Amino acid sequence: MSKKLSRRDFARTSVAAGAAIVLPGGPIKAAPGTSSIPSRARSSGAAVARRVRAALPSPEFGYGGDPVAAARDSIALAYAQPAAQQEAVPEVVNGWRVGTTLPSEYYLDEKRYEQDERFLAEHVWLLVDHESRIPRPADYFVFEFGRGESVIFLRNQAGEIKGFHNVCRHRASRLCRHHRDPAPADADRLSVKQLGPSGNTPVFRCPYHAWTYDLTGRLISAPNGMPSDFNMSEYGLIPCHVRTSGGFIIANLSHGDPPDFDSVVRPPRKPNWVSVCEDYGTAQMKIAARQYYPVHANWKLVLENFHECYHCGPAHKSLVRAHPFWDGTKTEAERQRIAAEVERFVPAQFHKSDGRSAMAGGDLPAGAMLNVGFSTGSLDGKPVAPLVPTKKEYSHQRWSASTTWALGNIQCYDDYVAVVRHTPRDVGKTDVEILWLVNAEAKEGRDYRPERVMALWDVTEREDRWIVENQMGYLSSAYRTGRYALSEGATRFLQSYMKEVVGS
Amino acid sequence: MSKKLSRRDFARTSVAAGAAIVLPGGPIKAAPGTSSIPSRARSSGAAVARRVRAALPSPEFGYGGDPVAAARDSIALAYAQPAAQQEAVPEVVNGWRVGTTLPSEYYLDEKRYEQDERFLAEHVWLLVDHESRIPRPADYFVFEFGRGESVIFLRNQAGEIKGFHNVCRHRASRLCRHHRDPAPADADRLSVKQLGPSGNTPVFRCPYHAWTYDLTGRLISAPNGMPSDFNMSEYGLIPCHVRTSGGFIIANLSHGDPPDFDSVVRPPRKPNWVSVCEDYGTAQMKIAARQYYPVHANWKLVLENFHECYHCGPAHKSLVRAHPFWDGTKTEAERQRIAAEVERFVPAQFHKSDGRSAMAGGDLPAGAMLNVGFSTGSLDGKPVAPLVPTKKEYSHQRWSASTTWALGNIQCYDDYVAVVRHTPRDVGKTDVEILWLVNAEAKEGRDYRPERVMALWDVTEREDRWIVENQMGYLSSAYRTGRYALSEGATRFLQSYMKEVVGS
Amino acid sequence: MSKKLSRRDFARTSVAAGAAIVLPGGPIKAAPGTSSIPSRARSSGAAVARRVRAALPSPEFGYGGDPVAAARDSIALAYAQPAAQQEAVPEVVNGWRVGTTLPSEYYLDEKRYEQDERFLAEHVWLLVDHESRIPRPADYFVFEFGRGESVIFLRNQAGEIKGFHNVCRHRASRLCRHHRDPAPADADRLSVKQLGPSGNTPVFRCPYHAWTYDLTGRLISAPNGMPSDFNMSEYGLIPCHVRTSGGFIIANLSHGDPPDFDSVVRPPRKPNWVSVCEDYGTAQMKIAARQYYPVHANWKLVLENFHECYHCGPAHKSLVRAHPFWDGTKTEAERQRIAAEVERFVPAQFHKSDGRSAMAGGDLPAGAMLNVGFSTGSLDGKPVAPLVPTKKEYSHQRWSASTTWALGNIQCYDDYVAVVRHTPRDVGKTDVEILWLVNAEAKEGRDYRPERVMALWDVTEREDRWIVENQMGYLSSAYRTGRYALSEGATRFLQSYMKEVVGS
Repeated sequence: MSKKLSRRDFARTSVAAGAAIVLPGGPIKAAPGTSSIPSRARSSGAAVARRVRAALPSPEFGYGGDPVAAARDSIALAYAQPAAQQEAVPEVVNGWRVGTTLPSEYYLDEKRYEQDERFLAEHVWLLVDHESRIPRPADYFVFEFGRGESVIFLRNQAGEIKGFHNVCRHRASRLCRHHRDPAPADADRLSVKQLGPSGNTPVFRCPYHAWTYDLTGRLISAPNGMPSDFNMSEYGLIPCHVRTSGGFIIANLSHGDPPDFDSVVRPPRKPNWVSVCEDYGTAQMKIAARQYYPVHANWKLVLENFHECYHCGPAHKSLVRAHPFWDGTKTEAERQRIAAEVERFVPAQFHKSDGRSAMAGGDLPAGAMLNVGFSTGSLDGKPVAPLVPTKKEYSHQRWSASTTWALGNIQCYDDYVAVVRHTPRDVGKTDVEILWLVNAEAKEGRDYRPERVMALWDVTEREDRWIVENQMGYLSSAYRTGRYALSEGATRFLQSYMKEVVGS
Repeated sequence: MSKKLSRRDFARTSVAAGAAIVLPGGPIKAAPGTSSIPSRARSSGAAVARRVRAALPSPEFGYGGDPVAAARDSIALAYAQPAAQQEAVPEVVNGWRVGTTLPSEYYLDEKRYEQDERFLAEHVWLLVDHESRIPRPADYFVFEFGRGESVIFLRNQAGEIKGFHNVCRHRASRLCRHHRDPAPADADRLSVKQLGPSGNTPVFRCPYHAWTYDLTGRLISAPNGMPSDFNMSEYGLIPCHVRTSGGFIIANLSHGDPPDFDSVVRPPRKPNWVSVCEDYGTAQMKIAARQYYPVHANWKLVLENFHECYHCGPAHKSLVRAHPFWDGTKTEAERQRIAAEVERFVPAQFHKSDGRSAMAGGDLPAGAMLNVGFSTGSLDGKPVAPLVPTKKEYSHQRWSASTTWALGNIQCYDDYVAVVRHTPRDVGKTDVEILWLVNAEAKEGRDYRPERVMALWDVTEREDRWIVENQMGYLSSAYRTGRYALSEGATRFLQSYMKEVVGS
Repeated sequence: MSKKLSRRDFARTSVAAGAAIVLPGGPIKAAPGTSSIPSRARSSGAAVARRVRAALPSPEFGYGGDPVAAARDSIALAYAQPAAQQEAVPEVVNGWRVGTTLPSEYYLDEKRYEQDERFLAEHVWLLVDHESRIPRPADYFVFEFGRGESVIFLRNQAGEIKGFHNVCRHRASRLCRHHRDPAPADADRLSVKQLGPSGNTPVFRCPYHAWTYDLTGRLISAPNGMPSDFNMSEYGLIPCHVRTSGGFIIANLSHGDPPDFDSVVRPPRKPNWVSVCEDYGTAQMKIAARQYYPVHANWKLVLENFHECYHCGPAHKSLVRAHPFWDGTKTEAERQRIAAEVERFVPAQFHKSDGRSAMAGGDLPAGAMLNVGFSTGSLDGKPVAPLVPTKKEYSHQRWSASTTWALGNIQCYDDYVAVVRHTPRDVGKTDVEILWLVNAEAKEGRDYRPERVMALWDVTEREDRWIVENQMGYLSSAYRTGRYALSEGATRFLQSYMKEVVGS
């Protein structure tokens, strides 16, 4: 199979198809000179030495002295970057040397976070949710971002999706509560009436003074008693910029002009957001499940983690069972064996990305192939839902697409799509949310069970939360600038961050 | 009844009798032009349009185009401000335009809060509690204010009420704990002895080194071992300024001269604190119940809410059942009907505030009248306790008085008085406490049940806490300066705040 | 017995043997003029006056007018400072008058804390733990200090104890978790593998990307894919300075040269850390129990408390039952009676510290003697464990030694040693930990029960936590600079702190 999977430009793919699950893999060899355990050990010290050797990977496992050669070899099998490109002359951006980790202040400083949050609100198109959450006119839900942004997304009477800040123009009340901020425990005996985090309503009436807005955001009613020069038409809800693509709601919170949308979802090179969504028919899907994962870490640590799979072997056993080529800890022999097995297992027409694929534009990378026996991204490889609208059979592939910096990302299998949303909430707090989409015709209970659809990416996100929250060494006086692995897309993300946010 | 209730000067009354429960009321009409729902709706969009119209108030309910006229009409029935006075040429105070909401920094900034807290401690007489909490010599209780003030109020051997900071002069220990800061869970097996939040004690002995103070604050005992130049007489407890009026303990935490007291409780115009207290005999009452309501909001938001009843119709159903004229959402016809019914219901001698009333000084406003069938501020209108000492029969009225900015307020009914105390604790934290006073001769269980006495103002405060904590739009980038309704006393409070605190 | 216990230089002893439990004691007399209770009391006020007098100590109990004389008298009996020395001309250090309490900013200001933490990390040898926690090669545990320091202490193959910062050199992950930061609740279904707060391991493998370090801190394995110029030998764990003395692990977190070690544990004057450890054989002990006490107070308040026993009478009933001379509230007559009883009770060879004692260097102070019937520091005086390695019989004494400022302290009895560690964690947060050591040959269950070994110092620390967390008067506007008692070692600690930390 190795010959059928050709090289791909990593950088190009990382933009369009999500670097987060892209892994160079390749053999890991023992580093030269690492076997010389100090000989002054006591008798029990000698026993430790034996245990150290036993704990180390087999000879061909460890870190090799020539990563470029190792990477070159692995390219035949896996989906990796040309070493030359990754090892360009180190560049310095705003005082930061590309390829190294950031000074800890970038993760800890409140002022830095404020600048980050404002930049994201104003210059980035944020993946918000899937349209199927609000199918009927007057459906709505609340979306929160950063320390204080709260936006109502609704479907208006014309069937369009709009967004309005959840801020009454009279006295700054929240018209609707967020699901993370439930009504008071004694709400049932109080006469305050406030809309919940989602629902269907013809008007948004403020719980405080009953100012009432329609689905266009206009203030249509307010109790008598305002000054004579008060003009209701000046007090509509503040809108935000909203677009849809592939069935997804995507928004920008700038109060001025929004950034260009097409360059995010429809850049010239394919696959891109639009092409992947079309290939899987995401616009014809529905939400089967959703789960919030509040993560106690700076948003950049969450994204740096999402941008690399150098950790997938050590930290995501279930994920690399479904995606064996993402596991860099496999030996060369193991990878060869897996490749041969996958080749026998997968029907011939899926060995190559040809005209049958809407994502055409190159040969198929190994990273897109599932394991032997795996039809989809599940714990056991078995399907978890009916095929998505555009698929007629299982291709044993998985494709991905992202919005800017993978703040939003979709992981597409033939029977479901996992939609991952990363939302900064505070300097050390990030909300991750995953939606699982299935064919809109599928019926829960009969055709799928939500817990099976969720299983793989739910456990993966829980593992990611653990390791990201564990990066507390940034608080230590012993923190020293580290080096990223070649495959860690964080470098590209941070390069862009340092140029565009810090340099702005 | 409408003719019997004449107009009153709102501004004048708001100072002396508490603006918090004063409401212009009046008919609310549909705003012109608000019925043009976009016509491009889908079929289900059209259904929404019908629901929008159904959700709107009846034609005479909504906001009318001519609020001045509406207000004028309502003045015949209710207790409201002359529109002309409220709509004076907008004034700008320290950069803030009177009648608009404050920039959000005033609610969020720590430095701003520090200035606020210091101002209140030094320049305001704070309502602390009712004297009946400490009837006997050596009775005491702890009062907390702001981020760090803790004061012991006690009755000394002469029967006078004094206040001393709850700070040992040796090493800054709290002599007594506050009820919000209970002793350690394992206290019963420890030998530390510390006084609780209230009780009776002849001396205050510090739990740390046993320094002991008497009821005059003098240090009267300390274990041996202080330096030879140590003089116990220099280490008495630091006192605070204390006054009483109407049976209430009122304090000022300035370490210099206190502000003038009489201008707060006994200003020239009546009704004032003293006259209302005398009319209801508050000095001859006792505490039937008390309840703390920690509110997670800046103190100014809590007071702004307390200063207006523009929200009472939407948010306080029980309150406006007892006080129908406070509900601005009633139609004109409904108000006329209620007024006629109240007129028939209330004995003639109470239709007008004449010489029989200690609060004389003008005709009776509708806002003071209770609903048909209501003898007091209860959920069902039925009495909840024996008449207060000065009353011989139910007048179906309610009067009020406030200390500065209504940080302290009393709501007086013929059978009980609700005492509301607003205490800033941090930039986003305010303690509200309500005491319910009844006739000192009344006996719990036989003459009253505390939960019935508490019911109306307890539910009202819980509703207020909800809506005040919900003003989180101040955190949003979409917050824009809003306009207050004419009836919202917050404008007068904020005008004073901007002049005296921010301008100081 | 009074004649057999001679005077000692308080200052000298406080450095070497722990000022924390040193007390001047002495009679406490009623202050002149404190009986004039105001006569204007009502009848119940007069009753209070009687209760005030009853609540006061007996005539010879209260604070006397001549503390120098009182202190002089008490020196004959107890272990106290020459008054003359303590009352030297007041010195001013960096604006602070020696003998007075600190301005509150020293306990509340974040910047001040940052300076403190850095000073302690760089200039102080910190007591970490007892060697018996990690007896075998490859044993390790995690120690946390300050806001962000986390260090792995381990025994290497040569049997030496080393310390390495718990910070992976790749992406700043914690290699091991701390016991205060447990693994996620759903850890059992996740594939992340992370070492716990203590255990035995031949290598430290990072849970994130599996970078693996050996017991010398060297990076010995990393998954393939690092840049070609990446050199594993440059990415070993960052070490910290470690020493051992008397079986204790003592560390310094400076990234440069550490401070001198011998002057801390082996100063010229005895008793010192080394001599006390040798006398009790602490190196031949094992840990019988350990307990954490998170204290919500600044570290200096915790130490100020530990440095004085002026509070022991009022706050530590169990402690002064075992150590009657530490209780300054005893009358002179009571002390005489106790001294006579102790003299009869204690075998003659222990009345005087002669050549038999490794701590020789002066006569035995009363403060070192236990109460009649007390063989050790227990609640009932009965032994709680077999004698320590170096003792043949019960001497009814207790000795102590401290590291700098008593951040580390040992309380040595004939059958156990209580090891107290004070660790700053944040401006208002200090971890206190106590280890209880017993003879390494003792067997739990058969020879001792941990709860009996722990009882006295556990209850004492819980009492200390209460009174230290109660020093909230530092938050009050009424806080005024206070005076320390002559016996309060805090003055010496603070004098050193103000010179060395604030003046640095």
